[in-house]
Amino acid sequence: MTELEKKAYMQKAIDLAQQGEGFVNPNPLVGSIIVKDGKIIGEGYHEKYGGPHAEVNAFNHATEDVEGATMFVTLEPCAHYGKTPPCALKIVEKKIKKVIIAKTDPNPLVNMKGIEILKNAGIEVEYGFMSDQVELQNEIFLKYIQTKKPFVSIKYAMTADGKLATKNLDSKWITNEASRAYVHELRNKHMAILVGVNTIIHDDARLNTRLDKPHRNPIRIIIDPELSIPRDAYVIKTATVQPTWIVTKKYEQRLVDQGVRIIQMPEIDFVQLMDKLGEEKVDSVLIEGGSYTHGKALESGIVDKVYVFIAPKLIGGTKALTPVGGEGVALMSDAYQLKNVKYTPFGDDILMEGTIIKGA
Amino acid sequence: MTELEKKAYMQKAIDLAQQGEGFVNPNPLVGSIIVKDGKIIGEGYHEKYGGPHAEVNAFNHATEDVEGATMFVTLEPCAHYGKTPPCALKIVEKKIKKVIIAKTDPNPLVNMKGIEILKNAGIEVEYGFMSDQVELQNEIFLKYIQTKKPFVSIKYAMTADGKLATKNLDSKWITNEASRAYVHELRNKHMAILVGVNTIIHDDARLNTRLDKPHRNPIRIIIDPELSIPRDAYVIKTATVQPTWIVTKKYEQRLVDQGVRIIQMPEIDFVQLMDKLGEEKVDSVLIEGGSYTHGKALESGIVDKVYVFIAPKLIGGTKALTPVGGEGVALMSDAYQLKNVKYTPFGDDILMEGTIIKGA
Repeated sequence: MTELEKKAYMQKAIDLAQQGEGFVNPNPLVGSIIVKDGKIIGEGYHEKYGGPHAEVNAFNHATEDVEGATMFVTLEPCAHYGKTPPCALKIVEKKIKKVIIAKTDPNPLVNMKGIEILKNAGIEVEYGFMSDQVELQNEIFLKYIQTKKPFVSIKYAMTADGKLATKNLDSKWITNEASRAYVHELRNKHMAILVGVNTIIHDDARLNTRLDKPHRNPIRIIIDPELSIPRDAYVIKTATVQPTWIVTKKYEQRLVDQGVRIIQMPEIDFVQLMDKLGEEKVDSVLIEGGSYTHGKALESGIVDKVYVFIAPKLIGGTKALTPVGGEGVALMSDAYQLKNVKYTPFGDDILMEGTIIKGA
Repeated sequence: MTELEKKAYMQKAIDLAQQGEGFVNPNPLVGSIIVKDGKIIGEGYHEKYGGPHAEVNAFNHATEDVEGATMFVTLEPCAHYGKTPPCALKIVEKKIKKVIIAKTDPNPLVNMKGIEILKNAGIEVEYGFMSDQVELQNEIFLKYIQTKKPFVSIKYAMTADGKLATKNLDSKWITNEASRAYVHELRNKHMAILVGVNTIIHDDARLNTRLDKPHRNPIRIIIDPELSIPRDAYVIKTATVQPTWIVTKKYEQRLVDQGVRIIQMPEIDFVQLMDKLGEEKVDSVLIEGGSYTHGKALESGIVDKVYVFIAPKLIGGTKALTPVGGEGVALMSDAYQLKNVKYTPFGDDILMEGTIIKGA
């Protein structure tokens, strides 16, 4: 097998893993390919939370005997009895000859145990192959498993002169249809979506996921200290079919009766809120706020990633709001820097995404 | 000759033309290639204002007899006696068999006259081939020749949260070295650079072109209504070697004695200023201003193009300045839209450039 073929197989496994997005949280995205005599004889991915692991699906879909084959898997096979028996044992049992792994298990209790089982059974093991890509693919899982806090992304759309809306608060639309459609992929990627109450007051936003493929709707989290949300808001009327959690200093039984969950906090504190959401097994939050919410979130240190859609339009205006308000840093050397920067064009718009470098 | 070969030859002519940038204003950038028996036997471009035209240079550099060859030229060969004899006649005289032209002459008095001369002499002529690219390459020439007003670009660098500087006015540096180096290509492209006096007060900016290749320094135009420029500013001290024009309501003989040119205006008006610069044969102006200057320029309707460098950094701050201030539009539907949008990465930064759609 050439290096190029190896890369192509692992890429295929990574692409397969991606298909689980939206359905496996808080589990990782994992894909697997079985190769024998220069062809793929089995493939699988972790399709949904609680369902079979990628390796098992690959075995189940195998079109011929897998004995002596090479298995590609994006994450180290598990070594523990959880909802399913350990995949490492399954691989031994199936008499796989070689296993190529991208990323070893990040859980220190499990790390290298799966590989150990394979090696002890005489299986050839290679690991760390294309692991960077798998780390990025599993950024949500990796943060959550290691910190028990959700992976937090901020998403906004701005003009080429750095504005979220005109001076009159008009923002329909800054970006084009292709950009706006992609926002639903981001919603599908995250377990929860967070906005300030003004988004509800101003737009009666639905905050659901609209995609032409299987997807899930995120938990809607609304920051509303004074409970000023319109009582006939779409998010309240649909609270029984899509979870709506209001973070507030107050309480109202009628909202609870309508299916809304009230998360009471004496003061709105993003750090405490993320701790709380982590306890509730929310592994990821997409903030689609305004200038104020983004500023607060960034300054509280909870933000991991930023998605910035930029449209080739200018609107001007000293009073128009910019994407991140708050106090702001004093010097450029104190700026929040992004790494793993990636650009994706959507027609004439462009999406810049990147991970915030912590402690920079 | 295949379509692909034709494109490759014209592309080569366009690339050659580009080498004249900074030296031919207010003439156009023009390149030419002579092809015979499947190989290039001559190439040339318009190298400097007043010098030979591209076609003449291509003939002069020809390595064999050009009779019966095909000539590629990016702009319609001239038909008039100017600083040089008409190129169309030269082509006839050289017995070229076929001429492929990208863009016809925009000057209505000359338009198609060169082509007519060629056709009357029995030369096969094709025109309009890859003309869009040549139009963009000659955007400065095309605007100036048709309106006698300079082509105006705005250039700025902003963070991913749409800011020109921190709340403390720190902007060193938003973009990386590669981005900052490219700014000098933009300065080389434009005949003049325009800033507000604050740029001088705050940075003692030199406003020259720093490139590792032949280049020119732009005329420095400083908007300074009250003549508050520091009298020991670099731009004043070097006014005798690089033109420094101050646009102001006042007058000071001592500045004139130091080589500064004073352009007096009772009120600073960008439209009038551009008319004035056009009369002075300034075909292009690069505005590297701040929020205020950009807002004023945009609202006055003089801006043709925008260059936006975007860096993957966040700085936050409701008080931090954004790239375009001023009054601003009220509705997104009134936004200034860009066309011919192009993205160029510089490391992790990206440059968005586009032409403002007029009357949108």
